[in-house]
Amino acid sequence: MSILLSVLVLALSTPPNDAAQDEASETRAIASVIEAQRSAWNDGDVEGYMQGYWQDEALRFASGGTITYGWQQTLDRYKARYNTREAMGHLDFTDVEITLMDDDDGLVFGRWALTREGDHPSGLFTLHVHKFDEGWRVVADHTSSAD
Amino acid sequence: MSILLSVLVLALSTPPNDAAQDEASETRAIASVIEAQRSAWNDGDVEGYMQGYWQDEALRFASGGTITYGWQQTLDRYKARYNTREAMGHLDFTDVEITLMDDDDGLVFGRWALTREGDHPSGLFTLHVHKFDEGWRVVADHTSSAD
Repeated sequence: MSILLSVLVLALSTPPNDAAQDEASETRAIASVIEAQRSAWNDGDVEGYMQGYWQDEALRFASGGTITYGWQQTLDRYKARYNTREAMGHLDFTDVEITLMDDDDGLVFGRWALTREGDHPSGLFTLHVHKFDEGWRVVADHTSSAD
Repeated sequence: MSILLSVLVLALSTPPNDAAQDEASETRAIASVIEAQRSAWNDGDVEGYMQGYWQDEALRFASGGTITYGWQQTLDRYKARYNTREAMGHLDFTDVEITLMDDDDGLVFGRWALTREGDHPSGLFTLHVHKFDEGWRVVADHTSSAD
């Protein structure tokens, strides 16, 4: 009977309007995590940037032809590749598209570009974001570079 | 009252065991779509390969730094890049991981490799698959190449 009641309460507490509001609110929450990552990067704060990622051994970071598993391993990879403020450059995201698939899973598509002294690398990203008690985090990242 | 009844029927008809069986069954269905794509490619059948993709203008195909929208546009891109049997080579997928996010959305991660006469390109893919009446289809593909 208690299961039956909770199903009813759930059904009654989420009319369509609330669902649309919830979706808009969750989409904003995801966008703010991505924006906080970009902002930390542009402050030269790689560890701050990494706060947007799931702090777990199962974090999946795919780039080009290489898969890195784990939050610490991904941080180490970033630190090795972007070991100076100049190497980090200025990061911009454009054409960001956020799609919620259910209450706690979303996909984020977008373009990334680095403005640096000597070059201007750019490419695409696809993020699987998941909602934890502490908020939305990137659980899988696939990044590619323009040729 | 009919909404209430259908919620109850739904709740009663999906005990945990059935849910696990459904998930295994859907995962196999997704795997078979991906395998049919690989098989068609290796028969030199680009149009057959394309049957795994959502036949819609909103299909999103991201590769390197380029986004192609639309099923026909994606087919045209493949035909231009792989215009001979030799260029197509032999396609293999490895390390394929399928994750269901809800009843009709899944993610597929994996590695791709082409064996050709003159080279051996390889890389990674991330697919968002969605279940339609006609079955699971790739609605978004992000592909990257090893450096």
